[in-house]
Amino acid sequence: MTTYNNNFYAVIMAGGIGSRFWPRVSTTKYPKQFHDMMGTGETLIQLTYNRISNIVQPENILVLTNESYKDIVKEQLPKIKEDQIVLEPAMRNTAPCILLAALKIRKMNEDAVMIVAPSDHWITEKDAFLDDINFALQMASKEDSLITLGIRPTNPNTGFGYIQFENNAQEERLQKITRFAEKPTLRNAKKYLEEGNYLWNAGIFIWRASFIIDSFSTHLQEMYRLIIDGEKDLNGPNEDKFIKENYPQAQNISIDYGILEKSDSVYVIPASFDWDDLGTWGAMYNQLAKDGHKNAVVNAKLIPENSTGNIVYTHSSKVVVIQGMEDFIVVDDKDVLLIVPREKEQEIKNIRARVLEKFEDLG
Amino acid sequence: MTTYNNNFYAVIMAGGIGSRFWPRVSTTKYPKQFHDMMGTGETLIQLTYNRISNIVQPENILVLTNESYKDIVKEQLPKIKEDQIVLEPAMRNTAPCILLAALKIRKMNEDAVMIVAPSDHWITEKDAFLDDINFALQMASKEDSLITLGIRPTNPNTGFGYIQFENNAQEERLQKITRFAEKPTLRNAKKYLEEGNYLWNAGIFIWRASFIIDSFSTHLQEMYRLIIDGEKDLNGPNEDKFIKENYPQAQNISIDYGILEKSDSVYVIPASFDWDDLGTWGAMYNQLAKDGHKNAVVNAKLIPENSTGNIVYTHSSKVVVIQGMEDFIVVDDKDVLLIVPREKEQEIKNIRARVLEKFEDLG
Repeated sequence: MTTYNNNFYAVIMAGGIGSRFWPRVSTTKYPKQFHDMMGTGETLIQLTYNRISNIVQPENILVLTNESYKDIVKEQLPKIKEDQIVLEPAMRNTAPCILLAALKIRKMNEDAVMIVAPSDHWITEKDAFLDDINFALQMASKEDSLITLGIRPTNPNTGFGYIQFENNAQEERLQKITRFAEKPTLRNAKKYLEEGNYLWNAGIFIWRASFIIDSFSTHLQEMYRLIIDGEKDLNGPNEDKFIKENYPQAQNISIDYGILEKSDSVYVIPASFDWDDLGTWGAMYNQLAKDGHKNAVVNAKLIPENSTGNIVYTHSSKVVVIQGMEDFIVVDDKDVLLIVPREKEQEIKNIRARVLEKFEDLG
Repeated sequence: MTTYNNNFYAVIMAGGIGSRFWPRVSTTKYPKQFHDMMGTGETLIQLTYNRISNIVQPENILVLTNESYKDIVKEQLPKIKEDQIVLEPAMRNTAPCILLAALKIRKMNEDAVMIVAPSDHWITEKDAFLDDINFALQMASKEDSLITLGIRPTNPNTGFGYIQFENNAQEERLQKITRFAEKPTLRNAKKYLEEGNYLWNAGIFIWRASFIIDSFSTHLQEMYRLIIDGEKDLNGPNEDKFIKENYPQAQNISIDYGILEKSDSVYVIPASFDWDDLGTWGAMYNQLAKDGHKNAVVNAKLIPENSTGNIVYTHSSKVVVIQGMEDFIVVDDKDVLLIVPREKEQEIKNIRARVLEKFEDLG
């Protein structure tokens, strides 16, 4: 039986969709976090919830999502009670929903330290993850700090934001952040890798609820005033009404841009676990086990003939026969079949848009 | 309102499967003739039935099939009554079932002239077809003749049997057959094309019921004796019992090999209509309309990007996105997805066998 620290809380962010990851896994009806992306038997949000519930007691875990995903969340996380699900009435990026969650949590527990975690990331080394998270929770409890977990880059990926930390303290586990860098050009990404003091921003944050709220009052005053007004209603029968009436007026801004880049109290812990945001089919290909011909498979019963380097993903466990296919993405969803070279994966977003133009039901 | 000749009968052969045409269309559970192969809105057996019922009155049409397809036939051909469906208890090639059908028909009408037609062929020019059939029926009524419709070859196809007719009578519509040639080598097929007096054997036959029965008594005496024994039971309550007990003992032989090659009364009418046996995905590709990049589609909503010469067949009307695909066969069935270069289509039979070895349910 795990002994939980009652001050630890978590917010699982489950409102997003990812259009590079179409089809199947980022239809707006049923986005990626609700899929068993890696064929483990659990969806990404289930994996996230299970991982976090090793360190945060289940009743202290909130799920932030959209109205339309409420039933999916309830179905996939049956232990999550209705009042632990916070529904955003409008997509407003990460800042407003984090403020809302922090206010709810502080109202439950003045001393709360909270984890903010995306619901759709892939982490294999659970123990290392928990060790880093635990350390971050301890540090955030003691000090006024906004802590993020940074992933050691393995390649000059241009799809992630980067975090630069102080060069002169590489041996420290908690590093002062000197700069947040937006998704870079390939040239800059390569430079970051060479310089060695850059990490990928995984969007996993740890802080005291009261300190992040203070940071909003300093750096995003308008949003703070809008939401603090409803503090009395939070965790009560009028919460929904307050959110519905006020949330849509909140500024559409990310926590990174709105708070972290402006704060002097931002720290990063270089993560000791393997991580991927599974943001594209290529990312998934990299994470999956391969057969002797470098083919990666999820769900399908693959019969490859003279085929190498493919990723084959099927909704059901259907048989897939491929012959003479090299480095392709093959995704067979209920309503869409996609066959695209892996090197063209960045075009999938545009293909999706063109398909939706013609067949609007398939978003 | 069509005025029918009451002596005209037809037998639609609907028992076969074609394993080159896997997946989807030749599972043993649901073979090709029961599919809307060309996306016309009608299955091949429905198209065949409708075509023939222009010239043969509906109650004179028999369907020969297997026990396991009985319900599909009833569903797809609702006008066919139970006693018009003849069920073969065992796969015994074409000779025994044609004899059985001829005996049933002769018992209904001593003067019957019958068409024997496969249920799974593709014929576009209905009027030309009916004109040829009509001519054949007239000729067969008048003379002791076994008439087949021969298709003018458009390429040296090695997948068909060939019919050689008398060289010195090319202007005649009804030609005396000099030789049946089995599926040839490519070299021989090319020679046949050059020689100009060869036709493809489409397996469409026309003859008087009494004359084909006489031919059995001459050329396949053992089979004749086996089946004639049950003549008294045919078209009556004991028919089923007789067939079940005797049919499985019949020799497994084709009408071509068992009768036509031995008879002196065999004639061919060079067909004036376009025909295909749709025996392979390549055959289907050739028959289908193409888009500007030579892609052919059945059922799918195809979004081709930088892709040419593909055939894409889906069970449902799902969206298929292909990019950088050239000359591929893409077949998306419920349980199997097949992606194979068109030039490798002859390997599909072997692939099917390998798949069935592993996943026996998918035959």
